Amino acid sequence: MNQDYIQPDDWSIIEEGFDPVRVQASGSLFSLGNGAMGQRANFEEQYSGPSFQGSYIAGVYYPDKTRVGWWKNGYPEYFAKVLNAPNWIGINVTVNAEALDLFTCKSVKYFKRELNMKEGWYKRSFEATLQNGITVKVKSIRFLSLKHDEVGAIQYSVTPLNNSASIALEPYIDSGITNEDSNWDDQFWESYDTLIEGDKAFIQSRTLKTNFNVCTFMQSELFVEQERIQLKPIEHSNTTFASFRYTAEISQNKTFTIYKRGGYTVDRNHDKAQLIEAAQSILNTTDALGFNKLLSLQKQSWSDIWDSADITILGDVRAQQGIRFNIFHLNQTYLGTDSRLNIGPKGFTGEKYGGSTYWDTEAYCIPFYMATKNQQVARNLLNYRYNHLQKAIENAEKLGFKNGAALYPMVTMNGEECHNEWEITFEEIHRNGAIAFAIYNFYRFTGDYSYIVEKGLEVLIAIARFWQQRATFSTKQKKYVILGVTGPNEYENNINNNWYTNYIAQWCIRYALQNIERIKKEYQTDYTRILHKAKLSVAELNSWQEVSENMYFPYSREHDVYLQQDGFLDKELTTVDELPKEERPINQHWSWDRILRSPYIKQADVLQGFYFFEDHFTLEELERHFNFYEPLTVHESSLSPCVHSVLAAKLGRMDQAYEFYLRTSRLDLDDYNKEVHEGLHITSMAGTWMSIVEGFGGMRVKDSKLSFAPRIPKQWEAYSFKINFRDQILKINVCHNDTKFELDGTKDLEILVNDKLITITPHNLVTV
Amino acid sequence: MNQDYIQPDDWSIIEEGFDPVRVQASGSLFSLGNGAMGQRANFEEQYSGPSFQGSYIAGVYYPDKTRVGWWKNGYPEYFAKVLNAPNWIGINVTVNAEALDLFTCKSVKYFKRELNMKEGWYKRSFEATLQNGITVKVKSIRFLSLKHDEVGAIQYSVTPLNNSASIALEPYIDSGITNEDSNWDDQFWESYDTLIEGDKAFIQSRTLKTNFNVCTFMQSELFVEQERIQLKPIEHSNTTFASFRYTAEISQNKTFTIYKRGGYTVDRNHDKAQLIEAAQSILNTTDALGFNKLLSLQKQSWSDIWDSADITILGDVRAQQGIRFNIFHLNQTYLGTDSRLNIGPKGFTGEKYGGSTYWDTEAYCIPFYMATKNQQVARNLLNYRYNHLQKAIENAEKLGFKNGAALYPMVTMNGEECHNEWEITFEEIHRNGAIAFAIYNFYRFTGDYSYIVEKGLEVLIAIARFWQQRATFSTKQKKYVILGVTGPNEYENNINNNWYTNYIAQWCIRYALQNIERIKKEYQTDYTRILHKAKLSVAELNSWQEVSENMYFPYSREHDVYLQQDGFLDKELTTVDELPKEERPINQHWSWDRILRSPYIKQADVLQGFYFFEDHFTLEELERHFNFYEPLTVHESSLSPCVHSVLAAKLGRMDQAYEFYLRTSRLDLDDYNKEVHEGLHITSMAGTWMSIVEGFGGMRVKDSKLSFAPRIPKQWEAYSFKINFRDQILKINVCHNDTKFELDGTKDLEILVNDKLITITPHNLVTV
Repeated sequence: MNQDYIQPDDWSIIEEGFDPVRVQASGSLFSLGNGAMGQRANFEEQYSGPSFQGSYIAGVYYPDKTRVGWWKNGYPEYFAKVLNAPNWIGINVTVNAEALDLFTCKSVKYFKRELNMKEGWYKRSFEATLQNGITVKVKSIRFLSLKHDEVGAIQYSVTPLNNSASIALEPYIDSGITNEDSNWDDQFWESYDTLIEGDKAFIQSRTLKTNFNVCTFMQSELFVEQERIQLKPIEHSNTTFASFRYTAEISQNKTFTIYKRGGYTVDRNHDKAQLIEAAQSILNTTDALGFNKLLSLQKQSWSDIWDSADITILGDVRAQQGIRFNIFHLNQTYLGTDSRLNIGPKGFTGEKYGGSTYWDTEAYCIPFYMATKNQQVARNLLNYRYNHLQKAIENAEKLGFKNGAALYPMVTMNGEECHNEWEITFEEIHRNGAIAFAIYNFYRFTGDYSYIVEKGLEVLIAIARFWQQRATFSTKQKKYVILGVTGPNEYENNINNNWYTNYIAQWCIRYALQNIERIKKEYQTDYTRILHKAKLSVAELNSWQEVSENMYFPYSREHDVYLQQDGFLDKELTTVDELPKEERPINQHWSWDRILRSPYIKQADVLQGFYFFEDHFTLEELERHFNFYEPLTVHESSLSPCVHSVLAAKLGRMDQAYEFYLRTSRLDLDDYNKEVHEGLHITSMAGTWMSIVEGFGGMRVKDSKLSFAPRIPKQWEAYSFKINFRDQILKINVCHNDTKFELDGTKDLEILVNDKLITITPHNLVTV
Repeated sequence: MNQDYIQPDDWSIIEEGFDPVRVQASGSLFSLGNGAMGQRANFEEQYSGPSFQGSYIAGVYYPDKTRVGWWKNGYPEYFAKVLNAPNWIGINVTVNAEALDLFTCKSVKYFKRELNMKEGWYKRSFEATLQNGITVKVKSIRFLSLKHDEVGAIQYSVTPLNNSASIALEPYIDSGITNEDSNWDDQFWESYDTLIEGDKAFIQSRTLKTNFNVCTFMQSELFVEQERIQLKPIEHSNTTFASFRYTAEISQNKTFTIYKRGGYTVDRNHDKAQLIEAAQSILNTTDALGFNKLLSLQKQSWSDIWDSADITILGDVRAQQGIRFNIFHLNQTYLGTDSRLNIGPKGFTGEKYGGSTYWDTEAYCIPFYMATKNQQVARNLLNYRYNHLQKAIENAEKLGFKNGAALYPMVTMNGEECHNEWEITFEEIHRNGAIAFAIYNFYRFTGDYSYIVEKGLEVLIAIARFWQQRATFSTKQKKYVILGVTGPNEYENNINNNWYTNYIAQWCIRYALQNIERIKKEYQTDYTRILHKAKLSVAELNSWQEVSENMYFPYSREHDVYLQQDGFLDKELTTVDELPKEERPINQHWSWDRILRSPYIKQADVLQGFYFFEDHFTLEELERHFNFYEPLTVHESSLSPCVHSVLAAKLGRMDQAYEFYLRTSRLDLDDYNKEVHEGLHITSMAGTWMSIVEGFGGMRVKDSKLSFAPRIPKQWEAYSFKINFRDQILKINVCHNDTKFELDGTKDLEILVNDKLITITPHNLVTV
C-alpha cells in the first residue's frame, strides 16, 4: 500500500488533517457522481497549490485528433476524449479582503473530509488562520442529486472565530476550462452566451466538433445563522464566467452560510434552444424543495441502492469500507437508466484513457449491475452495443472484413474506435467474444430471451461472421488458426492461436448457430426479419460450422495444459517469485520487448476462459491450469486478481482467494499502483464485488436457478450480500457455522446450495 | 511509373516546360550536394506556388522531442531530426518593380532544367512574361563546390527581351526557416548576429539544444553583359535576414548578371568564435578564383569521381541515365572524408525519416563506397560505428542487457536511438548483425586486418555479447532460441526465431571468437589491451560458444527450406500474383494486422542471409529458397529488388534479374512510389549499383581475389564498371560475346573469371 491516511470506517471515507501532498489523491477518492455528471473533490474556494480540477458530464466528449508516433493504415483519425466540463461548484471566499486559500494561509487545523457512502454526500470542514490573522471555521456539504440528476447542491458556511470580519462569498460558474489530458492542446469548448437573471446565472457553451450544447447554471441564497438575508451582490460576467459577490460584516462566532445549487442542462436531453428554460425549471423545482429536502431525497435514493446492493463484512472494518467504496463508486458512475452511456474506466474521477467503454463492461461490470439492479439496467448495457453495431461493422470493414462482420472497438465513446496501437486496436480482438458472452450471460441470469430475439441475434451474427473470416486454414495443422492476436494477457502481442481467443471464437460461432436454430423454430417472424436484414445464407452458415468444428487449440502434452499461445513453451518458464522486487511492476521497469518474451502474464488469459466457461472443464483441469499459469502471473492489470480470487475460492484455496481479494478491494483507497491522483479504477471495482459474490459466495446460475457454494475467509466473522434475481431480492448471510438465506419477494425461490436443492419462501429465514 | 517528364540522356537529367505540379518532385530530383551541405532544387527567385524549401548541413541536427501515441519503457526521449538550414541561394528579382515569380507571371516559355551529372552543376533557364508585359529571359547555373565544400556558386542572369526595364537583383541570406518535418512545432534555430561588411553578409545562428553554431554567408558581384559594374545597393538586415538590393536600368536584349557565392561555416569544423573569419577566408579564396575557375575545378572533381565509379550501359539510354543518377546522388550525399557523417536515407534532398544512419549503410552502401573509392572511405563508415560503441552499450542497458553488450540503434544521428516503435526499436535487432558483417566485408575486400585489431574487435565483442544474452534456452527445442524479433521483413513483427536473425547471431558470435583467437596469436599486445578493456573472461567465451553451437533454426521438412520464422507455415501461402492490383502496395491499402498475418514479405529476409552468406549454401539450396520465398515477396521496400536481382542473376535468371534491376534504377526518376516530392531514396541507390556489379557482373571477393561471372541482360549491347581493388582500378566491360578487363595500376592482378584464374597486367586489355 502506498497511502494509509484514510480512516477505517464502515460507511464513510474519512481524511483528517491537511496535507497539500494528498490534495490530488483525495480529489479522486472523494469524487462525487450521479450517473449524469460528476466531479473530483475540488475545493469550492480558491486553492493555489497543485491540484487537478475536473468536472465531467456523462456522454459529452470531444474527438481529439489522434496522436501517434508512426501512422498505420486503419488507425482512427480521432480519439473521443473524456471532457473536462465547466465548473459550477466554485465559491471564492475573502475575509477582510484576503482570499481564503488553504495553500497560502498561516495555518489549517481540524481539516476533515468525509464521504458518506450510505447517504451520498461529501463534507469538508476546517479552521484556517489567514495571513491577516483572522481564523475562520469553514464547513461545506456537497452532493449531486440522484433524484434530480441535473443538479447538485452545496451548503458552505464560514464562521470567524477570533474577531468579526468582512466576509465575501462569491459563487461562480466558469467555462474557461481545459483538459489535463489532451493530444494537441486544441480548444475543446466554446461559450456563446452568458446570462444573469436575478440570483441565477447561466453560461451556454458548446463543444467544438461534436457540438454538444451545455448550459451551466447556478443559484444561491445566503444566511447569517439561521436567518436568510438579502444582499445586493456585485456581479461579474464575461463569455466564460459569471459570479455574484456577496459581502457581509460577520460578527465573531456568527456563521455566514451560502446554499448554492448548480449543474448542467445538456442538449442530449433537451432541445438545444431550451437549455436555459430547462435550467430555470430545474432551479425552480429544487428551490422549492430547499437544501434539506433535496438532501433527504438523496439519502432515500442511496438507501434504495444499498437495499439491493449492499455487502456487509463483519470483523474486518477495512474490508467492509473497501467493498462499500467500490459499490458506491460503481453506482456514482453508472445507474443504467440511459443506454447511450456506459461505465468509463475512470468514471467521473479523471480523464486518463479517454473513451468510456472497454470490454471491462461486458466481462466484469455486467454481472454486478445484473445482480444488484433490475434487469433493464443490464439490458441497457446490451442495447448500447446493439446501437453501435453499424459502427462495429464499419470498423471491421476498415480492416478488410466484409459482409456485415463486426469488430467492436477496443475503446469507444460513440461506437468508433478510440485506440491506436496496432497490437491492441487491430489484434486484441477477443473483446468481440466478451460482447457475445454478455448476451448469453444476460439470458442465463434473467431467463429473458426477448433481448436475443429483438436485438441480440443480430449482434451474434455479426460477431460470428467476424470470427469465421478472421480464422485461416493452416495446411500444417489441418485446422483453422487465428494468427496475429493479442489475448487478455497484453504482455504478449501479435501471437498465434491465443487459446482464449480461439476458444471464445469457437463458442461465439456455436452460440450464434444455436440461437439461429432456436429462433428459426420458436420465433418464425423474427427469424425471417433477421435473416433478411442480415442477408444470411446456408452457405455462410456452413462456413461458420466448418471453422467452429475445426478450430485449432494449442496444447502441451508434457504439461497437460492448453497453451496460452503457440510459442508459449519456447519461453523460459521462470515463475514470478524469482523476479526481484525492485523490478516490479515489470511494466514500470522493463522495456517492452523484454516483457513480451518473458513468460509473465498480466492478467487472467487461459484462466479467463476457464472462468467464463467453467462448466466446460473439470475441477481437476481447472486446478492443473491454475497451477501452471498463476505462478507466471504478475497481476499488473487491476482486472486480474478478481478472476483469480473467484477461481482460487472454487479450488478451496481460501487463503489465496482472500489475498487476491485484498489486492482489488482497496486498490484505490490504499493506492497500490501509485496513480490514484489520476482518478479511480472504476471498472475493476465490479471485479471486487465478483470476488465476494462469485468467489466466496460461490454464486452461479445453473439451469435457471441460483446456486451457491458459500465459503468464508478465516479473517472474517461473517459477510452478507444481496442478489436481485428475476425481480426478487435474495439476501445471503455467510458465517463460519452456516449460511442464512432470506428472500424479499412474492414467490418461492428454488436455489442450489452446494448442489442441494432448497426452496426459499419469501421473508422466511432459511439456515443451511 | 508515375512520371515520365524527365528526358532520357546519357549524362544529364533534363526537364522541359514549366508545370507547377512538378515543382516539388523536381525539387528533389535536381537536388545538389557536396557531402558537406546540400539543397533541394528551389528557385533562387521568389516562388509563391506550392514548394518544399530545403537546405541541409551535414551533421547539423536537432533533438526533437519524441512524439508517440502510447509510451513504452525504453523509448528514446528525443529524435534527431534532419534540420532545414538557413537559405543562402535566394535572389529576389523585380522587373519594373514587379516581382519575378513563375507562379504568378503571365506566361513561362522555354523552361528547362538540366542537372549535369558529369560535371556536377545544375542549370535552369526560361522566358517569363510578367503581368506588366515585360518578357525576361533568365538563366541560372548553380553548383556546390566539391573542392571548397563550404561554398556554392550561382550565376544568375536576366535579359529583358521586349523592352528596356528597371531590374533589381536582391541576393539574400535567410535564417528564418522552419522544418517541414517537426513533431511539436518547436523552434529549432536561434540567430544571434547579423553582419554586413562591404558586399558580404553573414548571419550567425545556433541550433537550440544541440548548440551547433553556423555562419551563413554570401557575397556577390554584378555584370551587364561582360562588364563588371559597381552599384550602390540598398541593404536590408535584421536578426534572421540580410540582403543587398542592386537596381539597374537594363536595355532590351542586354543581360544583367549576378554571380553569387554563399554557404556555411560550422563549428563542427572551426572554432565557434572564428566562424565569420572562416567565412571571410573562404569567400576571399573563392573570390580570387572566380566563378569560371571554381566551375572548372568542379568539373575536375566530378571527373575524378567518375574515373573510378562510372558505369556505362550501351543500347539503353534510360538504364544508363538511371545508374548514373544513382551514382551521382550517392556521391553528392557522402564522400567519405568525415567519419562523423553517414549516408542519410534522403541525403540532402528532404527531411523524412529523421536520423541519418540505418543498417542500410552496412548492408547496402558499404560495398559501393568500398569498390568506388579508396579504402579509407569504407573505413570511415566503420569508424562511425566504433565511435558510437559506448552509446550502443548504453542503448542495450536501457533494454536490460549487461556487461558491455551493445545494441546499435535502428536509426541514429549521434549514436542515440531515434526510432520509437517497439517492434522496430526493440525488436529489429538483426541490425547488429549487419554492423558486424560490414567489418568482415571490409577485411574480405581490402585485406586490411588492422581495423579489426585497432577497433573492430571491440565492436564484435560487444555485439557477440548482445546475442549471447538475447538468446534464451528453450527446453522444448533443447536449443537456444531468439524470441520476439522483427526480421528484415518488417511485415512480420514480434516473431520467434527469425531464421535470418538467428543465423547472423550465430555467425556474429563465431566471427568474434575467430578474431579473438587470431588476435591472441598474432597481436599479443593488442589482445591484452582489448581483453582488459572489454573485461572478457573464459567463462563468458564459453557461454558464447554454447549459444552459437546450439542455435535453433526453424526448418520445414515438407518444403525443404529454412523457415522465415517459427509460425510461417501457419500462414496461408498464397503468392503475390493472386493479389488484386488495386490492393497494392499492400502497405497503402491493408491494415497492419492483415499485413502481419499475410505471407507477404516486404524485402529479402531468408534470402538476405543467402546473399550475405552465399558460400554457406549450395546453388541448389539457393534456388529452392528463392523459389519458395520470392513469389511471396511484394518488394515494398526500396532495398528489396537489388538483393533479388543479384540472386536471380546468380541463378542465371537474367530476365527476372533485369526486371528487378529496372525497379531500383529509376525508382525516383520515374517516381514508382509516388513520393519523390519528399526527397530521394539515397541508400537504395547503392543497391542499384550492386545489381549491376554483383548481379550482372557477378563480382565477388574469393580468397582475396576479385572474382567475376559476367552476364548481360539481352536488352543491353554492353556495359562496363570499375572496381577500386586494393588501390588499383580494374575496368570490366561486358558485352554479349566477351568480357574485357583493363587494369589501371602498377602490379599484376590475379582474378577469377567464371572460376578460372586469370592474370591482368596493368594497361593491357584482356578479353575473356
